Amino acid sequence: VQANLVILPRDLAHDFLRFAQANPRPCPVLAVSEAGSPQFPSLGEDLDIRTDLPRYRIWRHGELVEEPHDISHAWRSDLVSFALGCSFSFEEALLQADVPLRHIARGLGVPMYRTSIQTQRAGRFHGPVVVSMRPLKPADAIRAVQITGRLPAVHGAPIHLGYPEQIGIADLAKPDYGHALPLEPGELPVFWACGVTPQAAIAAAGIPFAITHAPGYMLVTDLKNAQLAV
Amino acid sequence: VQANLVILPRDLAHDFLRFAQANPRPCPVLAVSEAGSPQFPSLGEDLDIRTDLPRYRIWRHGELVEEPHDISHAWRSDLVSFALGCSFSFEEALLQADVPLRHIARGLGVPMYRTSIQTQRAGRFHGPVVVSMRPLKPADAIRAVQITGRLPAVHGAPIHLGYPEQIGIADLAKPDYGHALPLEPGELPVFWACGVTPQAAIAAAGIPFAITHAPGYMLVTDLKNAQLAV
Repeated sequence: VQANLVILPRDLAHDFLRFAQANPRPCPVLAVSEAGSPQFPSLGEDLDIRTDLPRYRIWRHGELVEEPHDISHAWRSDLVSFALGCSFSFEEALLQADVPLRHIARGLGVPMYRTSIQTQRAGRFHGPVVVSMRPLKPADAIRAVQITGRLPAVHGAPIHLGYPEQIGIADLAKPDYGHALPLEPGELPVFWACGVTPQAAIAAAGIPFAITHAPGYMLVTDLKNAQLAV
Repeated sequence: VQANLVILPRDLAHDFLRFAQANPRPCPVLAVSEAGSPQFPSLGEDLDIRTDLPRYRIWRHGELVEEPHDISHAWRSDLVSFALGCSFSFEEALLQADVPLRHIARGLGVPMYRTSIQTQRAGRFHGPVVVSMRPLKPADAIRAVQITGRLPAVHGAPIHLGYPEQIGIADLAKPDYGHALPLEPGELPVFWACGVTPQAAIAAAGIPFAITHAPGYMLVTDLKNAQLAV
């Protein structure tokens, strides 16, 4: 299991946890740390949140200010860390079921879009739901709904398919994150809620201080994806 | 639980059961009778297959020859009856989940189409998969895949959505059975395998003698739909 990471000062942690609880599709919580502890005992024995990820993002007042490979220099005793489920887990399940994923075949980052769907606000946290998009043939889209629906800990079933304009995406060729991925004839664009949503909320809310993973540079845990299925 | 009905002479019964086993999406078997017995003990205590349905179809050499309200006159001691799952069951589950079904709201029969998808042949039985179509908004289509996916005894998840031409349907306005149902803007046509498929096989194979329900005039059993979920 790989995970999205969000790190916040203790005084914002409860509101963020309420935000995640209210928005479980983009923000499925796998673990919450003790304040000041750089560990997730339930996710891995010798895990160190400060150094284990290959790339981080440091945010000040909602602005991305740094993308370091280590956050030891920015660590504080009041920081609470959140590990959130990631689509890499359901992608493993899709590939095992022979549902082809073009962005993986091409070695590209999955295209992600800010949508017109708003998250449920909690305290200062609000903003658009961010989605990832995978182009699939109709029968594969149906299988993908069934397979990912059994995996609510890693975003669950898609939240939309077929009509990008209905969720405020004007141009599939211009993702807000990741790489563009053209649809082939007879394919449907299928959209899943995405763990980059908290980063959009941190930016929208102008949160004074936060650290996240950099998109695509995830926390690798000791859990197996197969353990997540309900 | 309501059910599709297929009645065949004993010498065709094994091939039909193989056909159903090989094509579980259109032909999910709920019960098979003893030869000559007009009962399904597992589906209802005082059920009589010869009189309980409101309308039947009698087929000779693949041709529909009669649509009686009672088949006592055509009953034979070598007849084997098959009860097959029906979409009426999953429609109850969809309505309980607030997934709107336009054909029900309008009091129409669901539109059904012969497709270019072929069933797996077994003995003499072969022919096209027949599908039913329900127009749904994308988020409802996703919910419908999840809900009906848990109900394999009554056709399970859709087999297609979005592009009718990919499964050989040239014109949605011209169903082969039932009533036409126009799509509204932003809706997707969602297609489920249909229990009328055996009737298409009986016609395609020119089966010498068969009795079925008339489309929409089902066997009503003592089971509850909620018992079917996996």
